[in-house]
Amino acid sequence: MPVQELQPGSQPPLQPFEQLGLIGCGLMGGSFALALKKAGLVKRVVGYSKSPSTTERARQMGVIDVEAPSALLAAAGADLVLLAVPVAATEATLKSIKHLVTPNMMIMDVGSTKADVIQAARTALRDQLGSFVPAHPIAGKEVAGVEHADANLYRGAQVVLTPTERTLTAHLAKARALWQALGCEVKAMSPEAHDSALATVSHLPHLLAFAMMQSVLGQPDADEVLSLAGPGFRDFTRIGAGDPQLWRDVLLANHEQVLAQSRHFRQALEQLEAMIRAGDGQGLQDRLTLASAARSQWRMGARRHQA
Amino acid sequence: MPVQELQPGSQPPLQPFEQLGLIGCGLMGGSFALALKKAGLVKRVVGYSKSPSTTERARQMGVIDVEAPSALLAAAGADLVLLAVPVAATEATLKSIKHLVTPNMMIMDVGSTKADVIQAARTALRDQLGSFVPAHPIAGKEVAGVEHADANLYRGAQVVLTPTERTLTAHLAKARALWQALGCEVKAMSPEAHDSALATVSHLPHLLAFAMMQSVLGQPDADEVLSLAGPGFRDFTRIGAGDPQLWRDVLLANHEQVLAQSRHFRQALEQLEAMIRAGDGQGLQDRLTLASAARSQWRMGARRHQA
Repeated sequence: MPVQELQPGSQPPLQPFEQLGLIGCGLMGGSFALALKKAGLVKRVVGYSKSPSTTERARQMGVIDVEAPSALLAAAGADLVLLAVPVAATEATLKSIKHLVTPNMMIMDVGSTKADVIQAARTALRDQLGSFVPAHPIAGKEVAGVEHADANLYRGAQVVLTPTERTLTAHLAKARALWQALGCEVKAMSPEAHDSALATVSHLPHLLAFAMMQSVLGQPDADEVLSLAGPGFRDFTRIGAGDPQLWRDVLLANHEQVLAQSRHFRQALEQLEAMIRAGDGQGLQDRLTLASAARSQWRMGARRHQA
Repeated sequence: MPVQELQPGSQPPLQPFEQLGLIGCGLMGGSFALALKKAGLVKRVVGYSKSPSTTERARQMGVIDVEAPSALLAAAGADLVLLAVPVAATEATLKSIKHLVTPNMMIMDVGSTKADVIQAARTALRDQLGSFVPAHPIAGKEVAGVEHADANLYRGAQVVLTPTERTLTAHLAKARALWQALGCEVKAMSPEAHDSALATVSHLPHLLAFAMMQSVLGQPDADEVLSLAGPGFRDFTRIGAGDPQLWRDVLLANHEQVLAQSRHFRQALEQLEAMIRAGDGQGLQDRLTLASAARSQWRMGARRHQA
């Protein structure tokens, strides 16, 4: 029985789930299953992936206990379903399990965008929308696939829940307790606020890192130039190695916010360029000082509470 | 006596220097002095910093052995002088030591730009230009000051030497051997090639990271938004905490290359934006795939040779 020491008294202890139906056994889904098992919070994991070899590999690795031949059969009998598929696949996947969904089943996703996921859930789940708790754990790696699944991927991460007006409060409380039990800091906000904030601190930086790599590759002496890159470049472009399909989906799903943030960014860049062009040392130093001070003072939210 | 095992036979073993004159006792200069001492390659370090408290702190920390009250007195009697000052201060500093410079004295800098530094050295050193070996060790931290000096800062780093046509070959060979003895991989190239490549892989990424922070700060809910940023943002913006004065100087000194690279970058960004706006999923995925593959395959130059 897992011990709950988080916010004692504020909520009943979380009982282990009988069965997790894991739809999508990649990095995010696989890590969730491993974390849940490690915390003693699930008795059985039934998994499905679009690629049968992934499902098989997940079972061999002990990420899942049973392979299901379809999303529907992974959800059958589950009291918890985790959707860990590209956000663009949300609607079709939810439709495929819809007729098994009851108010006793809690469904969560792990998608990086929320307004589009909720729209997909409304269309697919209709009167069972109350079972769905939209979730975004802010964690990841620049490698995909179940072979990189890690029981500690979510430890210390922030998780944003963006409940709909129909989400059952019991599920919301359970979802919060679940992520807290995995070592996360949980916040609730509207899907719009989430998508706007994430466009700023995640989607835009990814777009810029991809553009940076594109820009270097487009030059005749790219190899020579890249051979001189040091630790600054390494860290700056790390997220430019992200999964192209996942990021295509995120950038398209959240296109309005991403494009708005890119406009903001280009304005800031053009202001700095104008100062460089004009040789305005004082203006440039003032701007860089503000930026540098803000970055030096910033600490990653959730992890500041860790030892 | 230090043991030289690098490229055996290719050059005579490096003899320890009698006296390092360290002009600028900050992170870069202080780390160089510590590394040289650790390698047994210097008998005495005489240091000068613009701020007397920095010089004093450097002596208390054992970074330097003797405090000098001026750059001139730090250089007096030195067979090796390291200039570790902001690049914009190069000309004035070299002028202040000029009448002590002889062909037996080797002078190096550690500046991030090379064409402007060489121009400053031509003006300041004139007939003693042969003593100067322009150097750029590609290493650093996002914190400044002697208190962060680290004997291992340069270990595994690349060092670019950009000798002038007047640089004495004996000094060039000695500079190469010295940096190799500190665990660096040494390359020689023209100052123009250096400045162009570094604009791409270092100066532009810094400018973009500063612009990213500017862009976030310019939004009404900056604190709330920043509280949601995760490890991707952390690494992407790390260099945005860089020293404002140092980066002001670099961006201004290398303004032509930096602005050219920024134009390249904005074109790449605008192409990606156009695909997002048009909902061109296939085009976007193709671009992201190229960028992601290039970044996944890239390894930092020098460190790939380490154990």
